[in-house]
This record gives sequence, C-alpha cells and structure tokens, in this order.
Amino acid sequence: MGNRISIGLDAMGGDFAPQEPVLGGYIAARDNPEIDLVLIGDKAAIEKALPGTLPNLKIHHAPEVIEMHDPPAISVRRKKKSSISVGADLLKNGDIQAFVSAGNTGAVVAASTLKVRLLPGIERAGLAVAFPTISGDPVIIIDVGANIDTKPTHLLQYAIMSSVYCNVMWDHVQNPRIGLLNIGEEDTKGISSYKEAASLLKASGLNFIGNVEGKDVFKGLADIVVMDGFVGNVVLKVSEGAADAVITMLKKEIYGGSFWAKLGAMLFLLPAYKRLKKKIDYSEYGGALLLGLNGVCIIGHGRSNARAIKNAINVAVKEIERKVNEKILQRIRV
Amino acid sequence: MGNRISIGLDAMGGDFAPQEPVLGGYIAARDNPEIDLVLIGDKAAIEKALPGTLPNLKIHHAPEVIEMHDPPAISVRRKKKSSISVGADLLKNGDIQAFVSAGNTGAVVAASTLKVRLLPGIERAGLAVAFPTISGDPVIIIDVGANIDTKPTHLLQYAIMSSVYCNVMWDHVQNPRIGLLNIGEEDTKGISSYKEAASLLKASGLNFIGNVEGKDVFKGLADIVVMDGFVGNVVLKVSEGAADAVITMLKKEIYGGSFWAKLGAMLFLLPAYKRLKKKIDYSEYGGALLLGLNGVCIIGHGRSNARAIKNAINVAVKEIERKVNEKILQRIRV
Repeated sequence: MGNRISIGLDAMGGDFAPQEPVLGGYIAARDNPEIDLVLIGDKAAIEKALPGTLPNLKIHHAPEVIEMHDPPAISVRRKKKSSISVGADLLKNGDIQAFVSAGNTGAVVAASTLKVRLLPGIERAGLAVAFPTISGDPVIIIDVGANIDTKPTHLLQYAIMSSVYCNVMWDHVQNPRIGLLNIGEEDTKGISSYKEAASLLKASGLNFIGNVEGKDVFKGLADIVVMDGFVGNVVLKVSEGAADAVITMLKKEIYGGSFWAKLGAMLFLLPAYKRLKKKIDYSEYGGALLLGLNGVCIIGHGRSNARAIKNAINVAVKEIERKVNEKILQRIRV
Repeated sequence: MGNRISIGLDAMGGDFAPQEPVLGGYIAARDNPEIDLVLIGDKAAIEKALPGTLPNLKIHHAPEVIEMHDPPAISVRRKKKSSISVGADLLKNGDIQAFVSAGNTGAVVAASTLKVRLLPGIERAGLAVAFPTISGDPVIIIDVGANIDTKPTHLLQYAIMSSVYCNVMWDHVQNPRIGLLNIGEEDTKGISSYKEAASLLKASGLNFIGNVEGKDVFKGLADIVVMDGFVGNVVLKVSEGAADAVITMLKKEIYGGSFWAKLGAMLFLLPAYKRLKKKIDYSEYGGALLLGLNGVCIIGHGRSNARAIKNAINVAVKEIERKVNEKILQRIRV
C-alpha cells in the first residue's frame, strides 16, 4: 500500500445505489490518482454502473445488501457478505484505511463498532453530525446514537475526539467551544452522569463553555455540543421532524391564503426552501463521522448523490492526510 | 367553599405581569360567576392593574416575586413569600383547587412538587405540553422536565395520567394512542428503562402503539408521546430552537434573493408565519399541565396575554368540573 491512501466505498448503500455511489467513487478516484478506491458490493451491478475503468479503482465483490430499512444489528449478524459487513471487515484488517457508506446508518455503526478495534484508550465510538446554525457556522453534535449506555468518561472522550477533529479539519475553528447539553444553565441541573461529565470537562483543558440548553443548540454559541447517544439520536431526529413540520405548516398557512399568497409562495418561498434544505442537509459536511475507531468511517445521508459521495470520500482522505486519529491518540494519552 | 370552584392565579407571573394576568383573571371571573378567583401577588400592584371589583374576585397578598430567569429551586427556597410559593401553599392547604401561573416554569414545578401532595399511588408528577402536528391534531408530550430521575413505572404513570386527561378533556380524542419515545422501531432498541416501560405499557390496557421516533413526534401518529423529563425537556427546547432556526435561515435565504423575493416574503411569508407562531404557541392549549398533584396546576407560557391567561383558567375549571384527578385515581387503582 505504501503511502497511498486506500478508501473503501459501499457501492450498495443509499437510496440511489449503486448508480450514485459508483459514479461518486469513480469521480473521486479519477480526480485524485493518489488514492486507491475499492468499490464494495455486487460485482455485476457495480460494473454495470461504472462509466469506465481506472488504474486506482477496483471492485471487492460482496453479494448481499443491507437495505435502508432493515433492522441494523440483526442484519449485520445475518448478512455477513453484505457490502456493509465486508466494508467493516476490510477496515478491521487494514485493507482499507477508511470506509465510506451512504447506507443504513445503524448497520454501518453496528458493523464498525462490532468489528473494528477502538483507538487505544478510547472506551466508546461516538457518532458526530454537523448541523448548520443561524450564526452561519456549523455545530457538531456528538453522540447521535453509536452508544446508548453512556458514562461520564465517554462524554469527555466525545468532546476530546470532536475537538481534535474540528481543530485539524476545519480551518475556521481554533480551540473549538465545547458545550454539554443540559436542561438549564444552573450547575445543579441535570442528571448525575451529566454533572460528573461537566466536572471532567472543566478539568480537561478543553475549551469547555458549560451547559447548553436545547433551544441554544442551533444558535452557534458552541462549535460542539456533547450528549449521550440516546438523547443525541432524539435531538437529531426531533430537529429534523420539527423543521419539516414547521415548513409543512407554513406551506399550509400560505396555501390557505389568497391566490397572490400562493403565487408568492411558489415563486419565492419554495426556491428559498430548496436552497435552505441543501444547506441543512448534513451530507454537505461529508456525512456523519464515527469517531474513536482505529480507522476512518464516514456515513453519508441516504439521499446522497454522486457529488455528496465524492465529498464524503474527500473528507475521509483529508482525515487520513491530516492524521486525525493519531492526534486523537496523542490527546487521549495526555 | 361549597360546590364553587376556587382558582388561584399568579398575578406576578409572565413577561406582561401584573397587567395581563390580572386582566385575564378579571375577565375569567366576570364571565364565570360560578368560580372564585384569587389573585396572588403584590396587593398594591394588583389593585393598580385591576379594571374594577367583582364579588367573586379577591386578592391574596404575596410581596415577593420570582423572576422569569431566577434559578428555580433556589428561588422557591429563598422567596417563601413569592406569588409562586404562596400559590403552591394555598393549593397544598386546599384553599384553592387549582393554581394557574405564567411565571417561571421551573419554579412553579419546584414549588408545587415540593409542597403539594401527589395523588395517592402516583410516584412522580409529570409536566405535559401539547404541540401542534402536521395532522392538525395536537400531540401531548410528557414529561418535559418535572422529574429527571425517571423509572419505568413513572413512564407508565405519565401515560395513564395523560391518557385520562385526553379522554376526559379533549372531545376529538377517544382512547388516545400512546407512543413511547425511542430511537428506533426495533423492540431491542433503547435504554433499559425504556424497554421495561414498553413492557409495562403493553400490559397496561392503554392504547399503546409502540415506539415513536423523534422524527415522527410532530406527524400526529400518536396523541401522546411519553418520555423521561431530561429527554422531554430537551425535546421541548430543541424543537423550539430548530423551528426558530429554520425560519431565521429561510428569511435569510429570501432576503438574500431579489427585490421581488423580499417583497413576496414581506407580503406573504411573514403574515403566514405569524399565524403559524400563534398555532404553535402551546399557551393556545391552556399551557403546560403538571399532572399527578392532588390539585390542578397549569403553567402558561411566559408570553401569555390576558386571553391566554383566561384560556388557562378555563382549562383549570374544566379539569375540576370533569374530575380529571378523580378519574386518574380510579385508573391508577385498577
């Protein structure tokens, strides 16, 4: 392998697989001859979707597919020859340095956390997602559901890992502001594991800014908001649900109005909303990051098109080039 | 007191106190001579705000005020003569059957749960809030933060209490559909207290429809979604924050557009948004309900105007007339 970077791509993952992942992978490999790209999935289907051959692009056959709505943990156990299971195996064995998938998020998390070793010293992997905020800069939320049996030290490690990630990967952030999700700014608030995590964060040397309430997550007051995986998964999904509901209700309000209101909505509101949707879509940031593994794992949105897949691959390449995991290790050992 | 209904109103609570609460209380008492209304707060300030006298309206002097941003638990302990502490005392002693406040939610919850006894058999009070959904019917979320040390039996009791409330109070709902918030529809999902709660709910005879994911809360698939107070408080605040953020970003998108887009937004989007805001505002449903107390406690939104206060009082009256607490007791004893 030498100094070349080897990326495995789930060719069967996402709503538009295999076409869009295969095309995205092809473009990424074509544009960056320094990487080796491994398309993982059904060989015949991949060959059919490939626009051509490239010296740095190969196929790793995996005949099974975990569908988007399959139960994650069970599917990983049952479909050992699925692109997701095989991708996690390749990552575990060091055959690839990064695994990128736009498939079933739960299944990618389950396969990766089951198979791939954690970085020495890390107790749990955490799944991080970047959201847009009204300040214009994104906020990282970690953990959105990789681990639901969360201890205070896990929360501290999520903060460390995502802080290193921000510092290394995002040029607009230095010394990221870290908040701990809680239900009030009073120190006495919240459940005991969060109180203990707050003490650990205060003593950590990280740029800990204290508790952040739910209503402030999208204001951009913090670069990172740390929470346990149960709450984080709820936050991820409730905010999507609330945003969708507001827009749906807003449309109803407008369509209940005059002819001119409807025309106005069609001309101005919907195009603006489409532009906004694109900004909100977290695949713009390369997808969700599974931090803490001895390897890189990025999970794109199910709706990922070729461009989003290419972006995710580029983020993975950058993570490897900038040695995010090595730097997490250094920071954990301190 | 006889068969008359006695309602205590926090005259000092909310952003527009004492004017709006006093006016709302005055109107409620004037429109319904069958109730006795007790305005709790600074006597001089109340008298100044009162448009007149009524035989069924009196003042209970309470010289201190807990401000909206005061730390709840500490303030209740320190300001024993505040309208909130005194209101909870009156409720505890049976001097009033219901306490209505638009003041500091945390303080009202702290004062009431500290002072007022729970209904026999109820282990924890739960704070319930009704949200609008895209189906047009509201959904009740319970608990949004009355109790953060939550056991499976508490979750079951939240379901029972809010189910009785819906059945008795809402004419459009019969046998309310109850969902348990969780992070996936798989039975194996979620933390152990939620798994245990799911078993209890299945065996309860309630109309339990299973797990509800965060993204589905606002779809109207369930009439009630049960969760622990830490998660519930986060859900309450994150959905407000996400809705606000989407609207703010949408405005930015539109204002970044052409002159015509701006004009269109001003003419159509903003009025529609204002109508929507009014619908989303949970004070429309009378406020948050603290269920499980031996007495009725309703907490209006801080922005409550006189009309919202009057609505909250009417909900309290209806709760007493329709014997919600008695019916909760009957159901708990089964």
